[in-house]
Amino acid sequence: MIPNRLSALRALMKQHGVAACIVPGTDPHASEYMAEHWTEMSWITGFLGETGTAIITLDQALLWTDSRYYLQAEAELQGTTVELMRESDIDCPTIAEWLCTTIGTRESGIGKVAVNPEMYSVNAYRDLRATLGEGGLELISIDLISPLWTEGRPAIPTSLLYEYEERYAGESVSSKLTRVRQAMQERRCDALVVSALDEIGWLLNIRGKDVDYTPCLISYVVVEMERCTIFVAPSKLNDAARAYLQRIDICTQDYDQVFDYLKDINASAIMYDGGKVNEALYEAINPAANKVNVSPSPVLKMQSVKNEVELQGERIAMRKDAVALTRFFYWLETQALSSNASSPQTEIALAAKLGEFRAMGENYTDDSFCTIAGWKGNGAIVHYHATPEECATIAGEGVLLLDSGGQYLDGTTDITRTIWLGNPANIPAAVKRDYTAVLKGHIALARARFPKGTRGNQLDVLARQFLWQEGMTYGHGTGHGVGHFMGCHEGPQNIRTDNNPNPLQVGNICSDEPGIYRANEYGIRTENLITVRECSNLGAQATGETFLEFETLTLCYYDTNMIDISRMTKDEIDWINAYHNWVYTEIAPLLSTEEAAFLQAKCQPIATQY
Amino acid sequence: MIPNRLSALRALMKQHGVAACIVPGTDPHASEYMAEHWTEMSWITGFLGETGTAIITLDQALLWTDSRYYLQAEAELQGTTVELMRESDIDCPTIAEWLCTTIGTRESGIGKVAVNPEMYSVNAYRDLRATLGEGGLELISIDLISPLWTEGRPAIPTSLLYEYEERYAGESVSSKLTRVRQAMQERRCDALVVSALDEIGWLLNIRGKDVDYTPCLISYVVVEMERCTIFVAPSKLNDAARAYLQRIDICTQDYDQVFDYLKDINASAIMYDGGKVNEALYEAINPAANKVNVSPSPVLKMQSVKNEVELQGERIAMRKDAVALTRFFYWLETQALSSNASSPQTEIALAAKLGEFRAMGENYTDDSFCTIAGWKGNGAIVHYHATPEECATIAGEGVLLLDSGGQYLDGTTDITRTIWLGNPANIPAAVKRDYTAVLKGHIALARARFPKGTRGNQLDVLARQFLWQEGMTYGHGTGHGVGHFMGCHEGPQNIRTDNNPNPLQVGNICSDEPGIYRANEYGIRTENLITVRECSNLGAQATGETFLEFETLTLCYYDTNMIDISRMTKDEIDWINAYHNWVYTEIAPLLSTEEAAFLQAKCQPIATQY
Repeated sequence: MIPNRLSALRALMKQHGVAACIVPGTDPHASEYMAEHWTEMSWITGFLGETGTAIITLDQALLWTDSRYYLQAEAELQGTTVELMRESDIDCPTIAEWLCTTIGTRESGIGKVAVNPEMYSVNAYRDLRATLGEGGLELISIDLISPLWTEGRPAIPTSLLYEYEERYAGESVSSKLTRVRQAMQERRCDALVVSALDEIGWLLNIRGKDVDYTPCLISYVVVEMERCTIFVAPSKLNDAARAYLQRIDICTQDYDQVFDYLKDINASAIMYDGGKVNEALYEAINPAANKVNVSPSPVLKMQSVKNEVELQGERIAMRKDAVALTRFFYWLETQALSSNASSPQTEIALAAKLGEFRAMGENYTDDSFCTIAGWKGNGAIVHYHATPEECATIAGEGVLLLDSGGQYLDGTTDITRTIWLGNPANIPAAVKRDYTAVLKGHIALARARFPKGTRGNQLDVLARQFLWQEGMTYGHGTGHGVGHFMGCHEGPQNIRTDNNPNPLQVGNICSDEPGIYRANEYGIRTENLITVRECSNLGAQATGETFLEFETLTLCYYDTNMIDISRMTKDEIDWINAYHNWVYTEIAPLLSTEEAAFLQAKCQPIATQY
Repeated sequence: MIPNRLSALRALMKQHGVAACIVPGTDPHASEYMAEHWTEMSWITGFLGETGTAIITLDQALLWTDSRYYLQAEAELQGTTVELMRESDIDCPTIAEWLCTTIGTRESGIGKVAVNPEMYSVNAYRDLRATLGEGGLELISIDLISPLWTEGRPAIPTSLLYEYEERYAGESVSSKLTRVRQAMQERRCDALVVSALDEIGWLLNIRGKDVDYTPCLISYVVVEMERCTIFVAPSKLNDAARAYLQRIDICTQDYDQVFDYLKDINASAIMYDGGKVNEALYEAINPAANKVNVSPSPVLKMQSVKNEVELQGERIAMRKDAVALTRFFYWLETQALSSNASSPQTEIALAAKLGEFRAMGENYTDDSFCTIAGWKGNGAIVHYHATPEECATIAGEGVLLLDSGGQYLDGTTDITRTIWLGNPANIPAAVKRDYTAVLKGHIALARARFPKGTRGNQLDVLARQFLWQEGMTYGHGTGHGVGHFMGCHEGPQNIRTDNNPNPLQVGNICSDEPGIYRANEYGIRTENLITVRECSNLGAQATGETFLEFETLTLCYYDTNMIDISRMTKDEIDWINAYHNWVYTEIAPLLSTEEAAFLQAKCQPIATQY
């Protein structure tokens, strides 16, 4: 099947005089979770993983993907003639390097490289074009997959647009549009293209259910000074949706009409976020209009600053999440793993059960990502997802890593807890040492105070310092931004090692999730969500600058059996005890008597005799 | 006098059709300490401060400088018609903004702005040209000051070039040139222009004494694959210097010949550091050669990684520095401030006395910068320098901040200590709190461990965290790189809040100098030099990455009376005690019996009963 598709593509490439075709695993909206309609990379290679880019030349086909997917790719590429390029390996060339050396040396003169411009952001497209240009290659915009993938191609999802009520969103659409138009005017722009689905959802107070985990709706939006238009398939609009859009004065056009609309737009300068807006949209814009690349877009900047209603909703969601997790842990310890349990539990069964508890929460709509339940060595695989074929059974004693989150109308959650299953007396000293080093970093970040203007990358080391002191580290970021009943990953702020010029703002929500991973042994990660607020009680010694701090939002106990208290400072112990007191006070009233007693035991103060 | 100079300049500007002339306070070598010959900004404005930029238009003259110089500028600009632009004030326009609005609105069409291209780095020139261009102004390269400043202009300094022996430098010139040529080949360059004086000194193992504090020699160097040429005034070469340059196979040409040399250079691609090399050199380069902007230059990258001989020399210099400081403090406490001292001491007298003690050290050549002795409120002025007119007398009790350093043939030092003069029982709690917060940060940075590849800006928060926790901060960087018998400030690495893409490398030397400043009360800063080395004893828990750590180089006690021990952790107290034990062991044998007893008392362990 794949070889036939490759032959058809090569025939089309020859017709267009194209030496290579790039098929990336992306969609036109720079989405994290993609609709199946856009899985062109999987269609042409057979590889079903979420991350990868294919290059097809007239005599070769290759797939670049990272080490998380090596095993899956090796299996799925068998018999396809597609070669795996292991991009996490140091000696693996980049796509551009490979193209420049391979096409450049084989073909004489300029080689044409085709890419569907809908699948590349403007910035990524420009970078690629420049690099290929230096290697003597020409990047051309052409969609060679759609003409071939006609049969069996999944349609664009058709979930319904619905109003996200202001009692959850906390700000009217007209207020948001006023602020966005001000930001446009500051850059002397009279139009703005929005293509990121979370930004559209925030701007118009709408949601949908077009993909898993993120309540977004496939559409484009163009904001002008006197008009705002959403480009959306008519099938996604029922009477209520149409009435809502009319009420907030938003024009509607069909999804594909955005290209024609931009072609004719009467704007002197049009703003776009080149990191999100795709090249096809850019190429469509009326040549008479100036194009102003602003990244992050003013929409994302506003969206990342949660208002009081959103934060209050987030706190409500956190309580529901904590109830679900506490009930789950209670069930796990007292029933699932008890000696008279009927059958052994698997990682998948645990994830499903947690999902059931979460789904009982009011206003729950979905999980915010696929739950990671990693037993022992599986916990050391950072993006582990159990599959029915490869799924550990929870047997004996060991470390369980559980990373999960929910979508509630009130807000989005994301939490990781690592617990010991079995007799606490059997927890190895090395596990306690690791758990404690992670926890100390987690607390140091949660307790941080910092002057206004501080960037997340300045604070990243606070979460890493104790691990580093012992020669340990983790390969992922410390914290990502989180949306409000929207994407579990949201910019522009984050807390990572890489430089990020966007300072932390009051109202940002971030995760705080250091970890340590012991291959084939266990993984430990501890994650809360935290929000940025202004410090109020600095004291007379303060030097007068505005200082910010974090408020912890997540409400779930830590496994204190795993803590090596001798490695904790008094401040850290006080923090843990205060946190557990808060968790118990907030959550116990929402639980049954038995569950509350269970939580009380978990929330006992540690080392009060310090 | 100044008005006459301004009139003459304006006449020349009119001749050339120039609407504004920029006169920056810089030299052609991007030097920190400038020869008087290049003080064009001072000559045209009357302002003698080290930092400032003048703009002269046909009817206005303005000087931009920062808040450190406001008072001095106000005084010195009186009667000159030059207006002060306070560039630290939020509402002060940048030079480019001011030019774009002022020239742009007054003149019709393109306004020409003149600048001497020798005084702007290529990068700064290009940025300015782009910004002015957006405002409709044209930047032109022309030196309008030299034709006017003929009488009384100080000559370029004529100190002699001398060999910096390999027993101090640790690497031969031929080895350095081989490495630099390899770096050139990696970027396919066959020529390299070096204009930074410290880089020239390092590359050719030469030194001079053309300016204060830095033992550099005014010259340019061009490295080609088969030849290396130094452009230097013949008066700076005595027989020994000529013999040395001949021995290491370096061609010599006169200083000004570099422009003609570059014009005719037979190179396919010429590398330059656009952050250092001036625009005039760039414009001189043979148009047939490609120009490759590499910043930092390969020379600076190599220079910043000290070899074992340099590090051993640095350790020797540190012992001499410690002896000088200990003797100074002994003199200060037992003689200068004793009740039967003949006369009160001033800040200037203290600085002079410290200089005398330092000058007794073997191989001492100079201080590495102008000593800062800040008594009470003067210590709160970050770049304070006492002048005969404004100089505090040390009377009563209080905080003294002392920041000083020496140039020894063995290496360069830079140290800050803050001490309490008077009865320790009278140290205010607020002073102890501040001192301790600074010290905790200083120790946290000194003790840090971090994976290879970590940038200084990732570690900056370690030094700030305890201050931030109490709403306090400082406005300067935490650490700067330090040269080897060369500039006290050296790149490319540093430890600052701003992003710096250059990771810390084994062999880098940096300062570790957090501080806190209480206007009109006192300043506290604690500074050691530290060098990066590989961690050796990580233990079995380490995850396998290469980790780095700092070795502290500076050998001088802290004023333990100022520490609030209740705010220190056991690890911090252990660190202080181990440091003091090391200081005493290393330095006591080099002191007199009385001085050693004094040092022993200062190095007593604190809080052994923790």
